[in-house]
Amino acid sequence: MKFSITKDKLVENVNHIMKAVSSKTTIPILTGIKITASHDGITLTGSNSDISIKSFIPLEENDKEYATIEKNGSIVLQARVFSDIVKKLPSEFVNIEVDSRLMTRITSGSSEFNLNGLDAEEYPRLPLIEEGNVLHVRTDLLKHVIRQTGFAVSTSETRPVLTGVNWNIQNGNLSCVATDSHRLASRTISIDADENAEYKNIVIPGKSLNELSKILDDSSGEWVEIVITESQILFKAKHLQFYSRLLDGNYPDTDRLIPAESKTDIVLSTKALLQAIDRASLLAKEERNNVVKFRTLSNEVEISSQSAELGRVFENVDIQSLEGEELKISFSAKYMIDALSRIDSQDIRISFTGAMRPFLIRPVEDEGILMLILPVRTY
Amino acid sequence: MKFSITKDKLVENVNHIMKAVSSKTTIPILTGIKITASHDGITLTGSNSDISIKSFIPLEENDKEYATIEKNGSIVLQARVFSDIVKKLPSEFVNIEVDSRLMTRITSGSSEFNLNGLDAEEYPRLPLIEEGNVLHVRTDLLKHVIRQTGFAVSTSETRPVLTGVNWNIQNGNLSCVATDSHRLASRTISIDADENAEYKNIVIPGKSLNELSKILDDSSGEWVEIVITESQILFKAKHLQFYSRLLDGNYPDTDRLIPAESKTDIVLSTKALLQAIDRASLLAKEERNNVVKFRTLSNEVEISSQSAELGRVFENVDIQSLEGEELKISFSAKYMIDALSRIDSQDIRISFTGAMRPFLIRPVEDEGILMLILPVRTY
Repeated sequence: MKFSITKDKLVENVNHIMKAVSSKTTIPILTGIKITASHDGITLTGSNSDISIKSFIPLEENDKEYATIEKNGSIVLQARVFSDIVKKLPSEFVNIEVDSRLMTRITSGSSEFNLNGLDAEEYPRLPLIEEGNVLHVRTDLLKHVIRQTGFAVSTSETRPVLTGVNWNIQNGNLSCVATDSHRLASRTISIDADENAEYKNIVIPGKSLNELSKILDDSSGEWVEIVITESQILFKAKHLQFYSRLLDGNYPDTDRLIPAESKTDIVLSTKALLQAIDRASLLAKEERNNVVKFRTLSNEVEISSQSAELGRVFENVDIQSLEGEELKISFSAKYMIDALSRIDSQDIRISFTGAMRPFLIRPVEDEGILMLILPVRTY
Repeated sequence: MKFSITKDKLVENVNHIMKAVSSKTTIPILTGIKITASHDGITLTGSNSDISIKSFIPLEENDKEYATIEKNGSIVLQARVFSDIVKKLPSEFVNIEVDSRLMTRITSGSSEFNLNGLDAEEYPRLPLIEEGNVLHVRTDLLKHVIRQTGFAVSTSETRPVLTGVNWNIQNGNLSCVATDSHRLASRTISIDADENAEYKNIVIPGKSLNELSKILDDSSGEWVEIVITESQILFKAKHLQFYSRLLDGNYPDTDRLIPAESKTDIVLSTKALLQAIDRASLLAKEERNNVVKFRTLSNEVEISSQSAELGRVFENVDIQSLEGEELKISFSAKYMIDALSRIDSQDIRISFTGAMRPFLIRPVEDEGILMLILPVRTY
C-alpha cells in the first residue's frame, strides 16, 4: 500500500473513527484503525464490541484533491498513536507506505515515522447487512431526536434493555422512547420509508446513538439512510457508515405509564422554569437527593428547596395559564433540568394528575415530544 | 449589612477569591468567603493555609456604578455555593442583606436565597504586613517570569523547599530560579526597587505563583507592588491583594550546577525543535521514561525515539550554526518541551558539555533566561 493524502482530511476522518475505538478491548486488533487504499479512495475503519464506523475519503471531491494512490492495500495501525501522530505532522501532506513486513512509513515534511503494522486480514469483518428496506431521515432531525430521548436511558446494567432507546416504525412514523423507570422521554417523527416498513422492539444502545450524533454533520441539509436487521442497525451518511449492535430483550410497554387525563395543567416559559430550577437545585444538590418542591400560586409557581446546612431558596416563575386544581409536588431537579434543556420550544405545558402520579411535560406547539417524570414524596 | 451590587462585577471578583478557597481545609470557616461592606465599597476575602486573596469592589469607578451600601457589616458565606449562586442569578443586580441571626438574604429578580451565614469575627485575620521596602514590577513581566520558572519546581514533597521558586533581589535585579534537581529554569529581570533593597533565599510556593498569575490582569500595562516579610509575601495590584506564605529552609546554591564552558553550541529555531520533539515523544511516551535521542549531523540535528511495540520515529531540524564537537545525547522529551514552550524568542542556543553533562538552553537575543536539563544515559 502506498498513498499520499491531505493532512486535514485525514485528521477529520480519523477523529470520526476514534469514536468507535476503545483502548479497553478483549480483541487486541480492535485497538487499531484499519486503513484501506483502493482505486477510488481511502477507507478507515474502527470498531469495538458495540459500534463500528467506516469512513471514506474520495480521491477528489468538489474540485479538491484529497489523495493520490500509488498502490492499493490495507494495514492496521495502533489507533491512539496514529491519531496523535497525524494531528501533529508538520506538512499539509502525508505519505503512507507499507512494506512487505507490514512496517508502515509515514512521512510529512522532515518527519518520518515507522510504525509496526498489523495484518489487515486479521481485522474482524463488519456485519454484512442486506439492504432491503431503507429508511430516510433528515440528519438534523435525527440528531434532535437522539438529543431529546437518549439522555433518559438507564445507566445501570440491572435491566440492560433500558440502557437503549426503543425505536418503533409503523405507518411512516418513527417513535423513539427511553426510560430509566424514574423518567421517560419520547419523540415521534414522520420519516421517509416504504409504507409497509414496520419494525417493532428495536432497542439501540444509548451510547451508540450518542456517538453517532457527535459525528453526523447536520450543516448541509443531508439525509441519513437507515437499515435495520435482526441484530444490527446501520446508519449511512455521506462517506460514513455507522453500525451499532441492537440490544436483546423485550422493551417494556411504556404506553401504560402515560396518564391519559390530568387534574392540573400549567403553561409557562421553558427557559424561565429551567433557570429557576437550575438555581433552586444549587441548595438541593448538597442534600442526598437533589429534590425541589413545586407549588402553584395564583399567577405563578414557586420552586423551593432547602438544605439544613446551607439555607433555603425560593424561586417564582410567572405562568401563562393554570387549569384545574392547585398542586404541591416534589421532584428531582436533575430530571427536570434534563427534560427542559432538551425542549427547544419557547413554552411548555405541564400536566399533573396529583402529587404522587407521574406528570407530563410537552412543548405547547409540538405534540411529537413528551417527557414524563415520577415525583418524589416529600409533602 | 445591606448592599446591592452589579452581578457581573460580583461574579468577576468572586472568581478571583475562589482561587484561594479550598474545600479541603482543617479550619471549617476557611471554606467560606468573607464579604465586608464599608463606606467605600465591598471587600471579598478568601484564604487557605498557603494563599489569601482580598479583592475590592469600589462603589463606582470610571463613571460606572458598581454598588450601593445601605448598611455596613460583614458575613462569611459558604464559598462554593455562593459562587455557584451568583453566577446563575437572573437579574443584572444582586441585593444582599444580613439579619441579626446571620441569615443572609440574596435576592435578584424573582430569585430569593436565604443562606446560613457565619460570624465574620471568627474569620482568621490576614497577616499584618509592614510596608517598608516596596518593589515594583510590571504585571505582564511578572506573569512572564512566573510562566518561565514556575513549571520547573518539584512536585514531590521529599525536599519541600524545591516546591518553591527561589527569588533573590539585589542591585535592582530580581533573579528567579526553580529546579526539581533534574532540570532548572531561571530568569533575571531588572525591577524598580530601592537601591539598598536586598532579599536573599525568598522561596515562594510554585502553586501560589501559579494562582497569582491566573488572576493578574496584564491587559492594561499595570504594575504590581511587592512587599516581602520574614514569612509572607504580598502582591498588590489594583483592587487586589494576594498574600502567600514563604517556604522555610535554605534553597540550594544552583549557580554551581551551571557549566561555565561548552563543547558544542547549536543555534536553531525554537518552534521547529519544539514541534519535532513533541512528535518524537509520541512514541517515547509509550515507554517508561519518555526519552528521545538527539544527535548533530552536518547541517541539521536528528531527534529520534523508538518503542519496541509501536515502531520508530526520526525528525530532522535544520540548524543555523554548529560550533565545536559533534554530539549524541539523550534527554527527557517532557523536560525539553516544558522548557522550549516557555521561550518566546524565535531562535535558541543550546550549549552542551558532553553527553553526560547538563546542557543549557538560552534565547539567542535575551540572556536573562536560562534553562538547564540533565541528560539521560542511553548511548
